[in-house]
Amino acid sequence: MFISFEGVDGSGKSTQVTLFIEYLKKMKKEFLLIREPGGTKAGEDIRSILLHLEYKLFPETELLLFMASRSQIVREIIMPALKEDKIVVADRFLDSSLAYQGFGRGLDIEMVRRLNNLATGGLVPDLTFLIDVPLEEAAKRKQAQEKNDKIEMESLDFFRRVREGYLEIAKAEPERVKVLNGLNDIELIHSEIVKIFEVFFRKRAR
Amino acid sequence: MFISFEGVDGSGKSTQVTLFIEYLKKMKKEFLLIREPGGTKAGEDIRSILLHLEYKLFPETELLLFMASRSQIVREIIMPALKEDKIVVADRFLDSSLAYQGFGRGLDIEMVRRLNNLATGGLVPDLTFLIDVPLEEAAKRKQAQEKNDKIEMESLDFFRRVREGYLEIAKAEPERVKVLNGLNDIELIHSEIVKIFEVFFRKRAR
Repeated sequence: MFISFEGVDGSGKSTQVTLFIEYLKKMKKEFLLIREPGGTKAGEDIRSILLHLEYKLFPETELLLFMASRSQIVREIIMPALKEDKIVVADRFLDSSLAYQGFGRGLDIEMVRRLNNLATGGLVPDLTFLIDVPLEEAAKRKQAQEKNDKIEMESLDFFRRVREGYLEIAKAEPERVKVLNGLNDIELIHSEIVKIFEVFFRKRAR
Repeated sequence: MFISFEGVDGSGKSTQVTLFIEYLKKMKKEFLLIREPGGTKAGEDIRSILLHLEYKLFPETELLLFMASRSQIVREIIMPALKEDKIVVADRFLDSSLAYQGFGRGLDIEMVRRLNNLATGGLVPDLTFLIDVPLEEAAKRKQAQEKNDKIEMESLDFFRRVREGYLEIAKAEPERVKVLNGLNDIELIHSEIVKIFEVFFRKRAR
């Protein structure tokens, strides 16, 4: 089973990933947590390239590097883990490319989809949790943190397009992508995620 | 004007690039020599990833990394140089991806073409010199050198597919891709290249 978490920076996505992992540990389920870009030797090198401010990457370069990292982690890490029946949890996956590079940076959506398909070899998460917050809230939360890398220093307008992109993806694939209101209490969001997961897990086990 | 040199390893391509650059210097023409992957800060980092033997890159990852390097060098280096009317000389460019990753590794040719188009933003060399040698000759020449990186350690069968791929590209685009017999004397090949270049250059100047 393959589960991804998505959302703009400041949505509370990573907090929910942490809580979900705690839950999987408590339930004694075998899991594997991955983050993108990275997760393999090549992927970690790609991550450093993407975070280098002075490299001045063009949007197309950025997209291709994310896809290269994805291509490697899917084949080297995710596929083998799924074969061993582990629950793979991804903090960002293919919807991030659609939302950030496609909707956010304005690259052709169909082209991003085709690249996702090449990078993943057709692998799609069984379940995706999209933590949605209004832009103002995400910005407020981000201000409270340190601005520590390039991607987090983008403009509000960019994040508006990213958020709208995410919501459009969720609308097109309601079976896979579950939208959670990120303004709710952290524990409430977590319990909703667990509920959806358990229903899905039981259905699968049948 | 944008000129690329292509051919399998051991074809004598790089020798011809060197001679052609000497010729451009002698003619006092402004030029820029690039190599792929590499040529930008990001591209040089990508190059190291591609040459890491222990990273065990999948063909899809390799392709996407080559494309990311190309995307950056086209926009950061090649386009500005062409705008300044420099002659850009590339030791390998988009046909290498088609021949090596497409024909050689068996990735979908149409997909490689689309990726090339994304990476280059539609930029295609004005003239491409393909130095063609029979496999046995390339292998003999390679044995005389040291096997110093991963891509040069591939099997003969792989190089056979790469060579055939190159010839197929040349057949489909005879106006752009000029095939030179790499068994000929080095100086003879060079003078043929200069002749083709001069005809093309004069036509352009009109």
